[in-house]
Amino acid sequence: MDSLTVSWNTEDEVIEIIDQTLLPGEVRIIRCDTVNRLALAIQRLEVRGAPALGVAGAYGICLVAAQNIHRDYDDFFRAVHEGADLLKSTRPTAVNLAWGIDRVLDAMIPSSSPAESAMCAAFEAEAIKEEDAAHCHAIGEAGAALLPDKCTVLTHCNAGALACSEWGTALGVIRSAVKSGKTVQVISCETRPLNQGSRLTAWELAQDNIPVKTITDSSAAHLMRKGMIDAVVVGADRITHDVVFNKIGTYMHAVCARYHNIPFYVAAPYSTFDFSSSEENVTIELRGREELAFCGDRKLM
Amino acid sequence: MDSLTVSWNTEDEVIEIIDQTLLPGEVRIIRCDTVNRLALAIQRLEVRGAPALGVAGAYGICLVAAQNIHRDYDDFFRAVHEGADLLKSTRPTAVNLAWGIDRVLDAMIPSSSPAESAMCAAFEAEAIKEEDAAHCHAIGEAGAALLPDKCTVLTHCNAGALACSEWGTALGVIRSAVKSGKTVQVISCETRPLNQGSRLTAWELAQDNIPVKTITDSSAAHLMRKGMIDAVVVGADRITHDVVFNKIGTYMHAVCARYHNIPFYVAAPYSTFDFSSSEENVTIELRGREELAFCGDRKLM
Repeated sequence: MDSLTVSWNTEDEVIEIIDQTLLPGEVRIIRCDTVNRLALAIQRLEVRGAPALGVAGAYGICLVAAQNIHRDYDDFFRAVHEGADLLKSTRPTAVNLAWGIDRVLDAMIPSSSPAESAMCAAFEAEAIKEEDAAHCHAIGEAGAALLPDKCTVLTHCNAGALACSEWGTALGVIRSAVKSGKTVQVISCETRPLNQGSRLTAWELAQDNIPVKTITDSSAAHLMRKGMIDAVVVGADRITHDVVFNKIGTYMHAVCARYHNIPFYVAAPYSTFDFSSSEENVTIELRGREELAFCGDRKLM
Repeated sequence: MDSLTVSWNTEDEVIEIIDQTLLPGEVRIIRCDTVNRLALAIQRLEVRGAPALGVAGAYGICLVAAQNIHRDYDDFFRAVHEGADLLKSTRPTAVNLAWGIDRVLDAMIPSSSPAESAMCAAFEAEAIKEEDAAHCHAIGEAGAALLPDKCTVLTHCNAGALACSEWGTALGVIRSAVKSGKTVQVISCETRPLNQGSRLTAWELAQDNIPVKTITDSSAAHLMRKGMIDAVVVGADRITHDVVFNKIGTYMHAVCARYHNIPFYVAAPYSTFDFSSSEENVTIELRGREELAFCGDRKLM
């Protein structure tokens, strides 16, 4: 699964992603052969998760670069920057997307030709992906040490292998804890309105035979009151110097965990940190009414 | 709408309910011509809401009585009590159901014949329905006085006209506030897994032109933090001497309201009170996995 989230197909020079909107019903790989298709995939949440968006953005620049390699230097960079602007505009809150794009752009600057620039981009994007995997494993080990030997951990949304290049951040903590011999039961909040918890987290953990139960988001406080939750671990979209931004519902869990004296952990790589910003100047993504008003064909309002 | 929730069709001697599982897509009336059909309607949540269940249970006894009026006295009462047991077994948590049934049974006891008993049952059931309406209006007026002249009120699930004979408990408070000239904006939590908030509360308030916005349940704490909620008003399934039982999520709102110093009100008639019980001896209803795993045809896990 770790290789399915987002990867660069070297032979065909396309980006391949698993369509996360179809899970768990169908496992389908999307081949993004244009930057427009990748932008659409990001908008539609076919690929999502802060660290994965960093990798996807980096590969997006590789894709534009590879497709414009035969143009002159100025046209090449114009195309690359247009692609970068398009990709950055798709999701405003997760900082990793812009971070991945900018890191690849920076790596291309010292180059003498489009061909060399494209090669630099490819190297940098692969480095970002490999680093992300390494960071997830490191986060996992650090976080696993904080969990009791036998525990029930609540998580919200999907901060797993599907949100990263592999292993996951919040689910990386759980995977590392299980790997180290701890007994972990996971409570996955379904995560409305798009159900990344029930559709992705529960599916992903079941693939690894990690015990997982799905609840409605609003059940969390009740389970905390009943002493059924030992820790909460979530990922993050962006961490400014004053606030953690993450999927709606994260704050509710934090308030309820605090009320019940339950440890609450945010698992995120440094690419998610944005200490130069504060809450007031971060745009929170607002999505369409239809995500709440319909579920499949079922009209809910 | 108030007459659609649950009513006795005197001419045909059937119970008529609006099928709440089809709202807001379709307004369809179900005619319950047997106690088994009514029990099924209660189990399926075609009729739901604690006060409405009290009325439905009462009418259920009328129905059995009317259909067994020509049997001898013992057989008549055997049928009535079998019907009562069946209806009581459908929903364990809402105390109003058993309360409405028992109240009608008690009213039948002093009668000398099945015909007289059936008439007593019919009188008592109508009295229950009329009292419920009167109580909702009284609750509404008492609650409305607690709300600021201009306010945004958050509610969870549906404690409205669809949950009562009319007017509603929590939504009765909002209706009475609007009627008294206050400016009330309602935030309706969608209320997973069956979306009574988005499907019923938003629909019902829109019929009365009361401004309403629907949010995911987990958004409530975020709106509280942003100062966008002035009060929380919810209904109740049962109130013991130690605990308020209501739809999952109610407790989460209570914890978050307390954390943000926002008033939290429970609006309920005395038929919802069960001071002889305590939390430990109340059965919390557990419903089927499919309610969380599917939404219409959409597979969510």
